[in-house]
Amino acid sequence: MSQYFADIAPVTFEGADSTNPMAFRHYNPQEKLGGKTMEEHLRFAVCYWHNFVWEGNDPFGGQTFQRPWFPADTMELARAKADAAFDMFRILGVPFFCFHDHDVRPEGDSLAESHKRLNEMADYFEKKMANGGPRLLWGTANMFSNRRYMAGASTNPDPDVFAYCASTVKACMDVTHRLGGENYVLWGGREGYETLLNTDLGRELEQMGRFLSMVVEYKHKIGFKGAILIEPKPQEPTKHQYDYDVATVYGFLKRFGLEDEVKVNVEQGHAILAGHSFEHELAMARTLGIFGSIDMNRNDYQSGWDTDQFPNSPSEAALAYYEVLMAGGFTTGGTNFDAKLRRQSLDAEDLIAAHVGAMDICARGLKSAYRMIEDDALEGPRRARYAGWDSADAQAMLAADATLDGIAARAEQARVNPQPRSGAQEKLENIVNRYV
Amino acid sequence: MSQYFADIAPVTFEGADSTNPMAFRHYNPQEKLGGKTMEEHLRFAVCYWHNFVWEGNDPFGGQTFQRPWFPADTMELARAKADAAFDMFRILGVPFFCFHDHDVRPEGDSLAESHKRLNEMADYFEKKMANGGPRLLWGTANMFSNRRYMAGASTNPDPDVFAYCASTVKACMDVTHRLGGENYVLWGGREGYETLLNTDLGRELEQMGRFLSMVVEYKHKIGFKGAILIEPKPQEPTKHQYDYDVATVYGFLKRFGLEDEVKVNVEQGHAILAGHSFEHELAMARTLGIFGSIDMNRNDYQSGWDTDQFPNSPSEAALAYYEVLMAGGFTTGGTNFDAKLRRQSLDAEDLIAAHVGAMDICARGLKSAYRMIEDDALEGPRRARYAGWDSADAQAMLAADATLDGIAARAEQARVNPQPRSGAQEKLENIVNRYV
Amino acid sequence: MSQYFADIAPVTFEGADSTNPMAFRHYNPQEKLGGKTMEEHLRFAVCYWHNFVWEGNDPFGGQTFQRPWFPADTMELARAKADAAFDMFRILGVPFFCFHDHDVRPEGDSLAESHKRLNEMADYFEKKMANGGPRLLWGTANMFSNRRYMAGASTNPDPDVFAYCASTVKACMDVTHRLGGENYVLWGGREGYETLLNTDLGRELEQMGRFLSMVVEYKHKIGFKGAILIEPKPQEPTKHQYDYDVATVYGFLKRFGLEDEVKVNVEQGHAILAGHSFEHELAMARTLGIFGSIDMNRNDYQSGWDTDQFPNSPSEAALAYYEVLMAGGFTTGGTNFDAKLRRQSLDAEDLIAAHVGAMDICARGLKSAYRMIEDDALEGPRRARYAGWDSADAQAMLAADATLDGIAARAEQARVNPQPRSGAQEKLENIVNRYV
Amino acid sequence: MSQYFADIAPVTFEGADSTNPMAFRHYNPQEKLGGKTMEEHLRFAVCYWHNFVWEGNDPFGGQTFQRPWFPADTMELARAKADAAFDMFRILGVPFFCFHDHDVRPEGDSLAESHKRLNEMADYFEKKMANGGPRLLWGTANMFSNRRYMAGASTNPDPDVFAYCASTVKACMDVTHRLGGENYVLWGGREGYETLLNTDLGRELEQMGRFLSMVVEYKHKIGFKGAILIEPKPQEPTKHQYDYDVATVYGFLKRFGLEDEVKVNVEQGHAILAGHSFEHELAMARTLGIFGSIDMNRNDYQSGWDTDQFPNSPSEAALAYYEVLMAGGFTTGGTNFDAKLRRQSLDAEDLIAAHVGAMDICARGLKSAYRMIEDDALEGPRRARYAGWDSADAQAMLAADATLDGIAARAEQARVNPQPRSGAQEKLENIVNRYV
Ligand SMILES: [Co+2]
Ligand SMILES: [Co+2]
Ligand SMILES: [Co+2]
Ligand SMILES: [Co+2]
Ligand SMILES: [Co+2]
Ligand SMILES: [Co+2]
Ligand SMILES: [Co+2]
Ligand SMILES: [Co+2]
Repeated sequence: MSQYFADIAPVTFEGADSTNPMAFRHYNPQEKLGGKTMEEHLRFAVCYWHNFVWEGNDPFGGQTFQRPWFPADTMELARAKADAAFDMFRILGVPFFCFHDHDVRPEGDSLAESHKRLNEMADYFEKKMANGGPRLLWGTANMFSNRRYMAGASTNPDPDVFAYCASTVKACMDVTHRLGGENYVLWGGREGYETLLNTDLGRELEQMGRFLSMVVEYKHKIGFKGAILIEPKPQEPTKHQYDYDVATVYGFLKRFGLEDEVKVNVEQGHAILAGHSFEHELAMARTLGIFGSIDMNRNDYQSGWDTDQFPNSPSEAALAYYEVLMAGGFTTGGTNFDAKLRRQSLDAEDLIAAHVGAMDICARGLKSAYRMIEDDALEGPRRARYAGWDSADAQAMLAADATLDGIAARAEQARVNPQPRSGAQEKLENIVNRYV
Repeated sequence: MSQYFADIAPVTFEGADSTNPMAFRHYNPQEKLGGKTMEEHLRFAVCYWHNFVWEGNDPFGGQTFQRPWFPADTMELARAKADAAFDMFRILGVPFFCFHDHDVRPEGDSLAESHKRLNEMADYFEKKMANGGPRLLWGTANMFSNRRYMAGASTNPDPDVFAYCASTVKACMDVTHRLGGENYVLWGGREGYETLLNTDLGRELEQMGRFLSMVVEYKHKIGFKGAILIEPKPQEPTKHQYDYDVATVYGFLKRFGLEDEVKVNVEQGHAILAGHSFEHELAMARTLGIFGSIDMNRNDYQSGWDTDQFPNSPSEAALAYYEVLMAGGFTTGGTNFDAKLRRQSLDAEDLIAAHVGAMDICARGLKSAYRMIEDDALEGPRRARYAGWDSADAQAMLAADATLDGIAARAEQARVNPQPRSGAQEKLENIVNRYV
Repeated sequence: MSQYFADIAPVTFEGADSTNPMAFRHYNPQEKLGGKTMEEHLRFAVCYWHNFVWEGNDPFGGQTFQRPWFPADTMELARAKADAAFDMFRILGVPFFCFHDHDVRPEGDSLAESHKRLNEMADYFEKKMANGGPRLLWGTANMFSNRRYMAGASTNPDPDVFAYCASTVKACMDVTHRLGGENYVLWGGREGYETLLNTDLGRELEQMGRFLSMVVEYKHKIGFKGAILIEPKPQEPTKHQYDYDVATVYGFLKRFGLEDEVKVNVEQGHAILAGHSFEHELAMARTLGIFGSIDMNRNDYQSGWDTDQFPNSPSEAALAYYEVLMAGGFTTGGTNFDAKLRRQSLDAEDLIAAHVGAMDICARGLKSAYRMIEDDALEGPRRARYAGWDSADAQAMLAADATLDGIAARAEQARVNPQPRSGAQEKLENIVNRYV
Repeated sequence: MSQYFADIAPVTFEGADSTNPMAFRHYNPQEKLGGKTMEEHLRFAVCYWHNFVWEGNDPFGGQTFQRPWFPADTMELARAKADAAFDMFRILGVPFFCFHDHDVRPEGDSLAESHKRLNEMADYFEKKMANGGPRLLWGTANMFSNRRYMAGASTNPDPDVFAYCASTVKACMDVTHRLGGENYVLWGGREGYETLLNTDLGRELEQMGRFLSMVVEYKHKIGFKGAILIEPKPQEPTKHQYDYDVATVYGFLKRFGLEDEVKVNVEQGHAILAGHSFEHELAMARTLGIFGSIDMNRNDYQSGWDTDQFPNSPSEAALAYYEVLMAGGFTTGGTNFDAKLRRQSLDAEDLIAAHVGAMDICARGLKSAYRMIEDDALEGPRRARYAGWDSADAQAMLAADATLDGIAARAEQARVNPQPRSGAQEKLENIVNRYV
């Protein structure tokens, strides 16, 4: 037990009229929407990264946060960090947490030493997870911070880095499996390039495809039942990231025959950076059959880098959970906050309050989305818009035996002359505003 | 023969010291680079669109250009337009041209009437193409300007639009085939959506996939030997375009089993809008085996819409043709200018001078690229950077029988500790500047 | 009286639970917030442009809207347009409207003829405005659509255009004055440049400054009591617009000694395009003493052009009206919708429903803002944050007789060592979410 | 003397055909263009920051560079750093250098101690600057990296920070003055805000204005003859920076009556981030009479943060120096590289080679610009475009006694009907390409 959050009581639901900044106004874990509780719908996870790792630096300034576990470069400080982290998980009442290897243990002098430390921390976690502690949503390996990865992880020009990564991912998958993790995530922070002038794009994509195939094979070998997830991001830290967006990841998976083995962890901020809306990326993932999990941290639309802010828009949350519900809800996935406090938010209380507000926005969004579906508020108009396609003649045009010239002949003969109908965008936006 | 360009003589090569704005300084068609002439390398095409169609409008202003063939709403004006167009092709000495149906004939009252007019114009073209006139690089159908397409072409909620498109594409493919076109292009200007609130993404992608499959089947049926090309674009006119970029198109093709049947026509401006560099998109197309052709019109990096400007950067042209040469050069594809004059460039001479400058920039870029390859200026350092992968041990890690745990075990045993090496980006940029 | 909106009844307030798309859920005109009714706070205006002028074109497609008054190229159609417009103003119950000269009358063959037509339409308006019709929020001149303005209005390289503009603005000011307009607006759609290569920036700014000075002098000459407003916009239609944003306009006004004579009309969409938030621009205008009026049409954050969409975000509206209220509310200004329907929103009902939703969002935002101020929800924490500056010592540092070295000496002597305090951004965002 | 660059010989001019990466191909210091040598025209400066300070970190990764003087937290390491820095200045043969206080000395425990250390390092510099060492282009204070500045420097909510800044700037001005610096620069890295919710914009701008006034007064008090320069930047590190761009800074200076006392240091990367071109910002500074100096580090147009890359575009350099020459060239200012190596460019040689390429690009740009002016290549067409304004009638419209109604009357009487003329943008772009 850490002292860091000693003054902060567990957060409880107080209802929409509460003005207590440390209470939930919308998130009532056991309240049911349909057959599932809000806790089951949302499956909240809080991550180590950035909460317990980031020191408040930005490109023009150094550390602003002063946490008792910094710099966390000894196992003792790593345990102190874990104590604080699990205190926070408990205060927030989240059912899940997640972590990178790098977040939870100082790196050792060798791969073996690093893995040993990781396993020691996993032992430490196991005790905390017993007796009602949070479960593990996913584990992952940080293969982007250390300078050895500066030119890529599995895509590195140096094969030794590829080998180093294999050992690292194996160790993280082993620990994730042992802790009952429901997913294993890969975010390729350095899988991309800075300048094409020194890059062999084709070779690097082959390396990445081969690496991912081995990850999938290893998952089956050890009997890990969770999902393998890729987290797309278009830019930053490398200028051109290979896992640009959901559609790009899908093409990559298809190319290497992995589309039934790997899903995506979609982050709002990364969707924005790729020029999409979050709901676009979620709808695309659903359509392509690779929807997995979400990182619910938002981006500033006007900052060209990943601001990883806590979500604060009721409207955006409603549209996001609408897509989650339309996808059938989470199975192995959940709602994670891969979010950064603003670097001026120095206090322990800021850390808790930020999560309270974020969880509340998600709960509020979920309820809006649930009611829109219950009321058929959007699906009704949508079905009507495409109703022309219900006819047998229309369906015949999509059948495998339809031909371009066959359809053309019929269209010409019938003197088809399609008349546009209103898309009613503003009316639909107004409908959404009845729910948010 | 039109009077519009009567004062303008055919453009000739005068060498780098010429100050004649209507002469080539770099493009010397019969000059050889390796086994091919510049004409064969570059395969220049000029398109009807926007040259003879766009009136100079922008969202805040109306027509600025006054051309004798406007508004081109009769067959007589359509022929006058064709006369001017072929005069321009001749003055520039381009080996190819290309067009949309909509560019060359006024739409008729029915599909049949529209097709009849298209065929009449094709007859007219055939005569002009005989005896040394330009060949057809590609034909295409405009399925985005008319209000019937406002909600999509093949992805329309109305199946009648789908049928209308089938007839339209068939007619355009027939004409392209008849005129000896080397490619058939599809740019899905309205294949996308404005708001997800009224859109069934999954259904629309299925429609688009089925449509493209029929296009490919029809190509084989009529014996068209040219390539089918998709032109990716991320945004504009619809907010979310389905053919976002090369990687997205690849995933779409894989999903519908069309990756060996369809290639891409990559436009510089569209690459930029998608957050990529042009050379990235070209390298990606090469890597994925779907490189087809290029539209060499650039985008303003700071305007969020497609400015379709004539290319004017020697550096960018060099890097673009570097990728074209590395891809083995064009086969069916070529260098097209899908470019717009600035709306204040009112004169006939502006139209010619803009192409002269653009062709010269491409020629200059080609020569820079060719010499960089000849000198091994970039490939040498690149090979050295990845040389570690040449060893048998490294290659074994990519082999089908390699396993994550096998590689991990060896890495741990060997106490692998990779040391980063300089990526030398600035030095490589300096090398490029020796060639541009 | 037009038939266009014949089926649509005047819109009334039905309360938050209403599901009627043609009723207000939040805007209750006579409901009081403090000493003013909502009507008095919001001062809604609807503009001719784009509602009755825009045909649905975009850069890749033509007209989608079919209105009975199109193409409005005769005075008869101009009157039909006015009939429809005033029907819509009545249906919406807005207290104000506004227009460009170009919106309300077809241009004549000469300046004199154009002005005569404008005055005839003003006669027509006067009758409609009598007996409870809407008042005029502002008039303005369209000096950007006609090709004569393609290279600028007052900044044109051709002095005849400058003279033409003088006549045009004089005529519009006269009509605005006659109709009791409360403001006169200038938006410099072509006051900027496409390429610096052909532009004399210094000369053009001088022309623009001189022109504005004459506008101000003329206002006083005719006894117009309304405000002169400039509407900033950074980009589009010209690549570099001179009235980039509020701070730029302020510098321009200072340079020509006009900062007490001219205010700004701030548009949300233009704020976004300039890389600011709307509330930033409003706070800046307040700080610089030039806050005038607002255009409440939003921009898509991810489209690089001005999308001019109807507002639909409760959160954004709350923050905008917060700044309006902090600035003391509107005096001559108001809330205008310079908004475009989406081009697929074809129906008369779409036009009304879009405004209903927009007005409701504004009303909802106003109420949120009003309550935040009443509760001291944001001002309380803000005062506390700067409380250190209340001390006499702190104030002395800002006094005119303070010196850098004097302050330095005291700081060194006192060994000043400032300790950062939390900025509490997330907590403040959570507070806002209690009100929206 | 440091060992870090021991293997690297002074860089010399070898001419355009040289393939030596460590030689100048274009920069021939004593070569004359008109009455000045290239050294006198360009006035190159190299800065401590980022060259000797930045460790290669980015938001997702730690230190990549390993320099013998890191972490430079003792005076001994500070001297080692200075030795290396001056070695590099010598190798490059630059006539100027520049620095932040923070770059050259470790911060002390108190203001007094920090100043003492700064002065010790100034002593050390003085010796190195004697006997042909570089002169000081400018000094500046880093008031953004330390956490005490996280909420602003002079704009901080805590008056102690304001006082701390006064002491810091005074010390830096004193040292700059002592070392014969030709300018003193202020870049307000934290003068801006993250969220308006906790910010009093009006108050902060007043603080900033008062602070700058005291800086100017202090300059006169100590007899510093150099220029005071503000470096505009729109965004990053704070979301909303107060010194957004040149026009904004001008308005700020006018507001506080400082427009004759302060000039701007314009950085290419910051111009880009503000949505402008670099040449726009330079032309604006010239027009407003506040052109001072330039930071010639470029931005990636597609990365939303400041990439601070070494310049590498011949075309951009030509247009930049064109504006510098049109402004009459530098007086106190110069060409500084506030540039960052890419974080994978690990070697000492990369540091030198990056500057060699950058200096060469500037020299090449200067020569292109000089020849364009000599040939009247752009000014000729520009004068012709505005020639209409040369007439007495046209000039009369700009005179102080001209009136809107007077001009209007004449325009109407004369039935003015302006006819647009081509802006010839493509032709002008082609002309530029003859020179780059
Ligand atoms: Co992120
Ligand atoms: Co994430
Ligand atoms: Co384009
Ligand atoms: Co194109
Ligand atoms: Co607008
Ligand atoms: Co507006
Ligand atoms: Co910078
Ligand atoms: Co700088």
